[in-house]
Amino acid sequence: MKILIVGAMGTLGKAVAAELGQRHELVTAGRASGDIRLDLTDRASMEATLARLGPLDAVVSAAGNVAFGALMEMDEGQWALGLRDKLMGQVNLALSAAKVLTDGGSITLTTGVLAEQPIRYGAAASMVNAGVQGFVRAAALELPRGLRINAVSPGVLVESMPGYAPWFRGFEPVPAARAALGFSRSVEGADTGQVYRID
Amino acid sequence: MKILIVGAMGTLGKAVAAELGQRHELVTAGRASGDIRLDLTDRASMEATLARLGPLDAVVSAAGNVAFGALMEMDEGQWALGLRDKLMGQVNLALSAAKVLTDGGSITLTTGVLAEQPIRYGAAASMVNAGVQGFVRAAALELPRGLRINAVSPGVLVESMPGYAPWFRGFEPVPAARAALGFSRSVEGADTGQVYRID
Repeated sequence: MKILIVGAMGTLGKAVAAELGQRHELVTAGRASGDIRLDLTDRASMEATLARLGPLDAVVSAAGNVAFGALMEMDEGQWALGLRDKLMGQVNLALSAAKVLTDGGSITLTTGVLAEQPIRYGAAASMVNAGVQGFVRAAALELPRGLRINAVSPGVLVESMPGYAPWFRGFEPVPAARAALGFSRSVEGADTGQVYRID
Repeated sequence: MKILIVGAMGTLGKAVAAELGQRHELVTAGRASGDIRLDLTDRASMEATLARLGPLDAVVSAAGNVAFGALMEMDEGQWALGLRDKLMGQVNLALSAAKVLTDGGSITLTTGVLAEQPIRYGAAASMVNAGVQGFVRAAALELPRGLRINAVSPGVLVESMPGYAPWFRGFEPVPAARAALGFSRSVEGADTGQVYRID
Protein backbone atom coordinates (compact mmCIF):
# COMPACT_ATOMS: atom_id res chain seq x y z
CA MET A 1 0.00 0.00 0.00
CA LYS A 2 0.97 3.62 -0.49
CA ILE A 3 0.21 5.42 2.77
CA LEU A 4 0.32 9.11 3.64
CA ILE A 5 1.19 9.75 7.30
CA VAL A 6 0.40 13.24 8.52
CA GLY A 7 2.30 14.26 11.64
CA ALA A 8 4.90 11.63 10.88
CA MET A 9 7.63 13.35 12.89
CA GLY A 10 5.63 13.53 16.12
CA THR A 11 5.99 11.04 18.95
CA LEU A 12 2.99 9.01 17.81
CA GLY A 13 3.63 9.55 14.09
CA LYS A 14 7.15 8.15 14.29
CA ALA A 15 5.85 4.98 15.91
CA VAL A 16 3.10 4.66 13.29
CA ALA A 17 5.66 5.11 10.53
CA ALA A 18 7.90 2.47 12.12
CA GLU A 19 4.99 0.02 12.27
CA LEU A 20 3.51 0.61 8.81
CA GLY A 21 6.89 1.21 7.12
CA GLN A 22 7.79 -2.44 7.62
CA ARG A 23 5.25 -3.48 5.01
CA HIS A 24 4.21 -0.41 3.01
CA GLU A 25 5.43 2.56 1.01
CA LEU A 26 5.14 5.69 3.15
CA VAL A 27 4.81 9.35 2.28
CA THR A 28 5.44 11.45 5.39
CA ALA A 29 3.87 14.86 5.91
CA GLY A 30 4.14 17.54 8.55
CA ARG A 31 3.86 21.23 9.16
CA ALA A 32 7.61 21.72 8.99
CA SER A 33 9.14 18.37 8.07
CA GLY A 34 8.59 15.14 6.16
CA ASP A 35 8.42 14.34 2.44
CA ILE A 36 5.74 16.98 1.96
CA ARG A 37 4.44 20.01 3.92
CA LEU A 38 0.84 19.86 5.05
CA ASP A 39 -1.04 22.31 7.27
CA LEU A 40 -4.25 20.81 8.69
CA THR A 41 -5.79 24.27 9.03
CA ASP A 42 -5.50 25.12 5.33
CA ARG A 43 -8.08 23.02 3.52
CA ALA A 44 -7.46 24.39 0.03
CA SER A 45 -3.73 23.70 0.14
CA MET A 46 -4.39 20.29 1.72
CA GLU A 47 -6.74 19.35 -1.16
CA ALA A 48 -4.23 20.52 -3.75
CA THR A 49 -1.36 18.65 -2.11
CA LEU A 50 -3.33 15.41 -1.86
CA ALA A 51 -4.46 15.71 -5.47
CA ARG A 52 -0.83 16.11 -6.57
CA LEU A 53 0.23 13.04 -4.58
CA GLY A 54 -2.11 10.95 -6.65
CA PRO A 55 -3.71 7.65 -5.70
CA LEU A 56 -3.17 6.61 -2.09
CA ASP A 57 -4.36 3.47 -0.36
CA ALA A 58 -4.47 4.96 3.13
CA VAL A 59 -4.25 8.34 4.82
CA VAL A 60 -3.26 8.37 8.47
CA SER A 61 -3.30 11.36 10.78
CA ALA A 62 -1.17 11.42 13.90
CA ALA A 63 -1.51 15.17 14.08
CA GLY A 64 -3.65 17.87 15.63
CA ASN A 65 -3.09 20.66 18.12
CA VAL A 66 -5.33 21.60 20.99
CA ALA A 67 -4.82 24.06 23.83
CA PHE A 68 -4.72 23.12 27.50
CA GLY A 69 -5.71 25.56 30.20
CA ALA A 70 -7.90 26.25 33.19
CA LEU A 71 -11.57 25.94 32.26
CA MET A 72 -12.58 29.38 33.49
CA GLU A 73 -9.51 31.12 32.06
CA MET A 74 -9.17 29.81 28.51
CA ASP A 75 -9.72 32.55 25.94
CA GLU A 76 -11.57 32.39 22.66
CA GLY A 77 -8.40 31.61 20.72
CA GLN A 78 -7.55 28.68 22.95
CA TRP A 79 -10.98 27.12 22.48
CA ALA A 80 -10.81 27.78 18.75
CA LEU A 81 -7.37 26.20 18.24
CA GLY A 82 -8.46 22.62 18.82
CA LEU A 83 -11.66 23.06 16.81
CA ARG A 84 -9.74 24.46 13.84
CA ASP A 85 -6.75 22.14 14.07
CA LYS A 86 -7.30 18.73 15.68
CA LEU A 87 -11.04 18.59 14.90
CA MET A 88 -11.81 20.37 11.60
CA GLY A 89 -8.23 19.88 10.42
CA GLN A 90 -8.66 16.13 10.63
CA VAL A 91 -12.22 16.33 9.23
CA ASN A 92 -10.94 18.29 6.24
CA LEU A 93 -8.05 15.87 5.82
CA ALA A 94 -10.56 13.00 5.75
CA LEU A 95 -12.80 14.74 3.23
CA SER A 96 -9.80 15.62 1.05
CA ALA A 97 -8.46 12.08 1.33
CA ALA A 98 -11.81 10.64 0.25
CA LYS A 99 -11.26 12.24 -3.17
CA VAL A 100 -7.88 10.64 -3.84
CA LEU A 101 -7.97 7.29 -2.06
CA THR A 102 -8.22 4.13 -4.12
CA ASP A 103 -11.47 2.15 -3.79
CA GLY A 104 -11.65 0.50 -0.38
CA GLY A 105 -8.88 2.73 0.96
CA SER A 106 -8.81 3.89 4.55
CA ILE A 107 -8.63 7.05 6.64
CA THR A 108 -7.37 6.87 10.22
CA LEU A 109 -7.61 9.84 12.58
CA THR A 110 -6.25 10.45 16.07
CA THR A 111 -8.37 11.19 19.11
CA GLY A 112 -7.39 10.35 22.70
CA VAL A 113 -8.25 9.11 26.14
CA LEU A 114 -9.46 12.53 27.29
CA ALA A 115 -12.59 12.05 25.19
CA GLU A 116 -13.92 9.74 27.88
CA GLN A 117 -11.55 10.27 30.81
CA PRO A 118 -11.14 13.98 31.50
CA ILE A 119 -8.37 15.71 33.41
CA ARG A 120 -7.98 19.21 34.84
CA TYR A 121 -7.09 21.77 32.14
CA GLY A 122 -8.24 19.37 29.43
CA ALA A 123 -11.77 20.56 28.64
CA ALA A 124 -10.93 21.67 25.10
CA ALA A 125 -9.10 18.41 24.43
CA SER A 126 -12.02 16.35 25.77
CA MET A 127 -14.43 18.32 23.59
CA VAL A 128 -12.29 18.01 20.46
CA ASN A 129 -11.38 14.33 20.91
CA ALA A 130 -15.01 13.40 21.48
CA GLY A 131 -15.95 15.42 18.41
CA VAL A 132 -13.45 13.50 16.28
CA GLN A 133 -14.99 10.23 17.47
CA GLY A 134 -18.52 11.40 16.65
CA PHE A 135 -17.41 12.45 13.19
CA VAL A 136 -15.70 9.13 12.49
CA ARG A 137 -18.73 7.08 13.51
CA ALA A 138 -20.98 9.13 11.22
CA ALA A 139 -18.63 9.59 8.25
CA ALA A 140 -18.28 5.82 7.98
CA LEU A 141 -21.92 5.67 6.84
CA GLU A 142 -21.45 7.97 3.89
CA LEU A 143 -17.96 7.55 2.50
CA PRO A 144 -18.14 6.51 -1.15
CA ARG A 145 -16.42 3.61 -2.99
CA GLY A 146 -16.01 1.36 0.03
CA LEU A 147 -13.70 3.83 1.74
CA ARG A 148 -13.25 3.22 5.43
CA ILE A 149 -12.61 5.53 8.37
CA ASN A 150 -11.57 4.80 11.95
CA ALA A 151 -9.96 6.64 14.84
CA VAL A 152 -7.29 5.60 17.31
CA SER A 153 -7.70 6.82 20.88
CA PRO A 154 -4.45 6.32 22.77
CA GLY A 155 -3.86 6.98 26.43
CA VAL A 156 -1.04 9.32 27.42
CA LEU A 157 2.14 8.07 25.75
CA VAL A 158 5.08 6.74 27.74
CA GLU A 159 7.28 8.97 25.59
CA SER A 160 5.24 12.06 26.55
CA MET A 161 5.27 11.46 30.29
CA PRO A 162 8.36 13.60 31.01
CA GLY A 163 6.31 16.66 30.06
CA TYR A 164 2.78 15.49 30.87
CA ALA A 165 3.12 13.42 34.04
CA PRO A 166 1.79 16.04 36.50
CA TRP A 167 -1.52 16.19 34.64
CA PHE A 168 -1.87 12.44 34.13
CA ARG A 169 -1.12 11.04 37.59
CA GLY A 170 -2.50 7.54 37.91
CA PHE A 171 -3.04 7.08 34.18
CA GLU A 172 -1.18 4.05 32.87
CA PRO A 173 1.01 5.37 30.05
CA VAL A 174 0.95 3.60 26.70
CA PRO A 175 4.10 3.00 24.62
CA ALA A 176 3.76 4.78 21.26
CA ALA A 177 4.59 1.46 19.58
CA ARG A 178 1.48 -0.08 21.16
CA ALA A 179 -0.70 2.88 20.15
CA ALA A 180 0.66 2.42 16.62
CA LEU A 181 -1.01 -0.99 16.48
CA GLY A 182 -4.38 0.76 16.35
CA PHE A 183 -3.32 2.44 13.13
CA SER A 184 -2.16 -0.87 11.71
CA ARG A 185 -5.50 -2.43 12.60
CA SER A 186 -7.40 0.38 10.91
CA VAL A 187 -5.24 0.48 7.76
CA GLU A 188 -4.67 -3.24 7.33
CA GLY A 189 -7.97 -4.52 8.73
CA ALA A 190 -11.50 -4.24 7.34
CA ASP A 191 -13.29 -2.17 10.00
CA THR A 192 -15.01 1.15 9.53
CA GLY A 193 -16.59 3.61 11.95
CA GLN A 194 -14.56 2.22 14.85
CA VAL A 195 -12.67 3.98 17.62
CA TYR A 196 -9.77 1.85 18.85
CA ARG A 197 -9.11 2.66 22.49
CA ILE A 198 -5.54 1.89 23.42
CA ASP A 199 -5.25 2.82 27.07
CA MET B 1 -35.10 27.87 42.19
CA LYS B 2 -34.74 30.59 39.60
CA ILE B 3 -33.97 28.87 36.29
CA LEU B 4 -32.99 30.32 32.92
CA ILE B 5 -34.18 28.19 30.00
CA VAL B 6 -32.48 28.98 26.70
CA GLY B 7 -34.42 27.82 23.66
CA ALA B 8 -37.57 27.76 25.71
CA MET B 9 -39.88 28.10 22.71
CA GLY B 10 -38.46 25.11 20.83
CA THR B 11 -40.08 21.68 20.88
CA LEU B 12 -37.77 20.41 23.61
CA GLY B 13 -37.59 23.74 25.45
CA LYS B 14 -41.37 23.97 25.84
CA ALA B 15 -41.45 20.53 27.42
CA VAL B 16 -38.58 21.43 29.75
CA ALA B 17 -40.38 24.62 30.76
CA ALA B 18 -43.59 22.67 31.39
CA GLU B 19 -41.72 20.22 33.62
CA LEU B 20 -39.60 22.68 35.59
CA GLY B 21 -42.25 25.42 35.67
CA GLN B 22 -44.39 23.29 37.97
CA ARG B 23 -41.95 23.83 40.80
CA HIS B 24 -39.64 26.73 39.93
CA GLU B 25 -39.47 30.32 38.75
CA LEU B 26 -38.51 30.36 35.06
CA VAL B 27 -36.87 32.98 32.88
CA THR B 28 -37.26 32.00 29.24
CA ALA B 29 -34.77 33.03 26.57
CA GLY B 30 -34.55 32.61 22.84
CA ARG B 31 -33.17 34.14 19.69
CA ALA B 32 -36.48 35.77 18.82
CA SER B 33 -38.85 35.09 21.71
CA GLY B 34 -39.10 34.53 25.45
CA ASP B 35 -38.63 36.85 28.43
CA ILE B 36 -35.18 37.80 27.16
CA ARG B 37 -33.27 37.61 23.85
CA LEU B 38 -30.15 35.48 23.81
CA ASP B 39 -27.96 34.56 20.86
CA LEU B 40 -25.69 31.59 21.60
CA THR B 41 -23.17 32.76 19.02
CA ASP B 42 -22.58 36.15 20.67
CA ARG B 43 -20.57 35.49 23.82
CA ALA B 44 -20.14 39.11 24.88
CA SER B 45 -23.86 39.87 24.73
CA MET B 46 -24.63 36.54 26.44
CA GLU B 47 -22.28 37.42 29.33
CA ALA B 48 -23.82 40.86 29.68
CA THR B 49 -27.36 39.51 29.61
CA LEU B 50 -26.64 36.85 32.22
CA ALA B 51 -24.91 39.39 34.45
CA ARG B 52 -27.99 41.63 34.25
CA LEU B 53 -30.29 38.75 35.15
CA GLY B 54 -28.45 38.39 38.41
CA PRO B 55 -28.23 35.29 40.58
CA LEU B 56 -29.64 32.14 38.99
CA ASP B 57 -29.85 28.66 40.46
CA ALA B 58 -29.81 26.82 37.18
CA VAL B 59 -29.18 27.50 33.51
CA VAL B 60 -30.68 25.09 31.02
CA SER B 61 -30.02 24.99 27.29
CA ALA B 62 -32.48 23.35 24.94
CA ALA B 63 -30.94 25.22 22.03
CA GLY B 64 -28.32 24.84 19.34
CA ASN B 65 -28.33 24.74 15.56
CA VAL B 66 -26.39 22.35 13.39
CA ALA B 67 -26.50 21.75 9.64
CA PHE B 68 -27.50 18.46 8.02
CA GLY B 69 -26.21 17.46 4.61
CA ALA B 70 -24.41 14.87 2.55
CA LEU B 71 -20.95 14.20 3.97
CA MET B 72 -19.07 14.86 0.74
CA GLU B 73 -21.12 17.94 -0.17
CA MET B 74 -21.31 20.00 3.02
CA ASP B 75 -19.50 23.31 2.65
CA GLU B 76 -17.30 25.09 5.15
CA GLY B 77 -20.19 27.17 6.46
CA GLN B 78 -22.31 24.12 7.14
CA TRP B 79 -19.55 22.46 9.15
CA ALA B 80 -18.91 25.73 11.00
CA LEU B 81 -22.54 26.35 11.97
CA GLY B 82 -22.80 23.54 14.49
CA LEU B 83 -19.35 24.25 15.93
CA ARG B 84 -20.21 27.92 16.43
CA ASP B 85 -23.79 27.44 17.59
CA LYS B 86 -24.66 24.11 19.25
CA LEU B 87 -21.10 23.39 20.43
CA MET B 88 -19.27 26.64 21.29
CA GLY B 89 -22.57 28.45 21.84
CA GLN B 90 -23.43 26.03 24.62
CA VAL B 91 -19.84 26.03 25.92
CA ASN B 92 -19.90 29.82 26.12
CA LEU B 93 -23.33 29.73 27.77
CA ALA B 94 -21.93 27.34 30.38
CA LEU B 95 -18.86 29.49 31.02
CA SER B 96 -21.02 32.63 31.25
CA ALA B 97 -23.47 30.87 33.54
CA ALA B 98 -20.66 29.79 35.85
CA LYS B 99 -20.09 33.44 36.70
CA VAL B 100 -23.66 34.17 37.81
CA LEU B 101 -24.96 30.90 39.23
CA THR B 102 -25.43 30.61 42.97
CA ASP B 103 -23.11 28.18 44.79
CA GLY B 104 -24.03 24.60 43.90
CA GLY B 105 -26.09 25.75 40.93
CA SER B 106 -26.35 23.71 37.77
CA ILE B 107 -25.81 23.95 34.03
CA THR B 108 -27.61 21.55 31.70
CA LEU B 109 -26.79 21.34 27.99
CA THR B 110 -28.42 19.50 25.12
CA THR B 111 -26.70 16.91 22.97
CA GLY B 112 -28.46 14.05 21.18
CA VAL B 113 -28.61 10.46 20.07
CA LEU B 114 -26.53 11.09 16.93
CA ALA B 115 -23.45 11.41 19.13
CA GLU B 116 -23.41 7.62 19.39
CA GLN B 117 -25.90 6.48 16.76
CA PRO B 118 -25.18 8.18 13.45
CA ILE B 119 -27.48 8.63 10.48
CA ARG B 120 -26.91 9.63 6.87
CA TYR B 121 -26.46 13.42 6.49
CA GLY B 122 -25.78 13.73 10.21
CA ALA B 123 -21.96 13.85 10.37
CA ALA B 124 -21.82 17.44 11.63
CA ALA B 125 -24.49 16.70 14.23
CA SER B 126 -22.66 13.57 15.41
CA MET B 127 -19.43 15.53 15.69
CA VAL B 128 -21.02 18.44 17.55
CA ASN B 129 -23.14 16.32 19.91
CA ALA B 130 -20.16 14.18 20.84
CA GLY B 131 -18.13 17.34 21.42
CA VAL B 132 -20.76 18.70 23.82
CA GLN B 133 -20.57 15.44 25.78
CA GLY B 134 -16.77 15.56 25.97
CA PHE B 135 -16.92 19.14 27.19
CA VAL B 136 -19.48 18.36 29.89
CA ARG B 137 -17.50 15.43 31.28
CA ALA B 138 -14.37 17.59 31.52
CA ALA B 139 -15.93 20.86 32.67
CA ALA B 140 -17.45 19.07 35.66
CA LEU B 141 -13.93 18.65 37.06
CA GLU B 142 -13.14 22.34 37.12
CA LEU B 143 -16.32 24.30 37.74
CA PRO B 144 -15.89 26.44 40.88
CA ARG B 145 -18.14 26.76 43.94
CA GLY B 146 -19.77 23.34 43.70
CA LEU B 147 -21.37 24.20 40.37
CA ARG B 148 -22.59 21.18 38.43
CA ILE B 149 -22.88 20.48 34.72
CA ASN B 150 -24.66 17.69 32.85
CA ALA B 151 -26.03 17.07 29.37
CA VAL B 152 -29.24 15.49 28.17
CA SER B 153 -29.03 13.34 25.05
CA PRO B 154 -32.51 12.68 23.71
CA GLY B 155 -33.45 10.49 20.79
CA VAL B 156 -35.44 11.97 17.94
CA LEU B 157 -38.54 13.58 19.44
CA VAL B 158 -42.04 12.30 18.70
CA GLU B 159 -43.01 15.90 18.02
CA SER B 160 -40.25 16.26 15.42
CA MET B 161 -41.06 13.09 13.49
CA PRO B 162 -43.36 14.76 10.93
CA GLY B 163 -40.28 16.53 9.56
CA TYR B 164 -37.51 14.10 10.47
CA ALA B 165 -39.02 10.64 9.98
CA PRO B 166 -37.33 9.82 6.65
CA TRP B 167 -33.88 10.22 8.25
CA PHE B 168 -34.71 8.37 11.46
CA ARG B 169 -36.43 5.22 10.21
CA GLY B 170 -36.34 2.54 12.87
CA PHE B 171 -35.41 4.93 15.67
CA GLU B 172 -37.94 4.84 18.50
CA PRO B 173 -39.10 8.44 18.94
CA VAL B 174 -39.08 9.96 22.42
CA PRO B 175 -41.87 12.23 23.67
CA ALA B 176 -40.43 15.67 24.51
CA ALA B 177 -42.02 15.36 27.96
CA ARG B 178 -39.90 12.27 28.62
CA ALA B 179 -36.73 13.99 27.37
CA ALA B 180 -37.58 16.84 29.74
CA LEU B 181 -37.13 14.48 32.69
CA GLY B 182 -33.41 14.45 31.97
CA PHE B 183 -33.32 18.19 32.57
CA SER B 184 -35.25 17.79 35.80
CA ARG B 185 -32.81 15.14 36.93
CA SER B 186 -29.84 17.38 36.18
CA VAL B 187 -31.31 20.52 37.75
CA GLU B 188 -33.00 18.95 40.76
CA GLY B 189 -30.57 16.08 41.37
CA ALA B 190 -26.98 16.13 42.59
CA ASP B 191 -25.06 14.68 39.62
CA THR B 192 -22.29 16.36 37.69
CA GLY B 193 -20.40 15.38 34.54
CA GLN B 194 -23.20 13.06 33.44
CA VAL B 195 -24.82 12.56 30.06
CA TYR B 196 -28.42 11.38 30.43
CA ARG B 197 -29.35 9.30 27.41
CA ILE B 198 -33.09 9.34 26.83
CA ASP B 199 -33.63 7.22 23.76
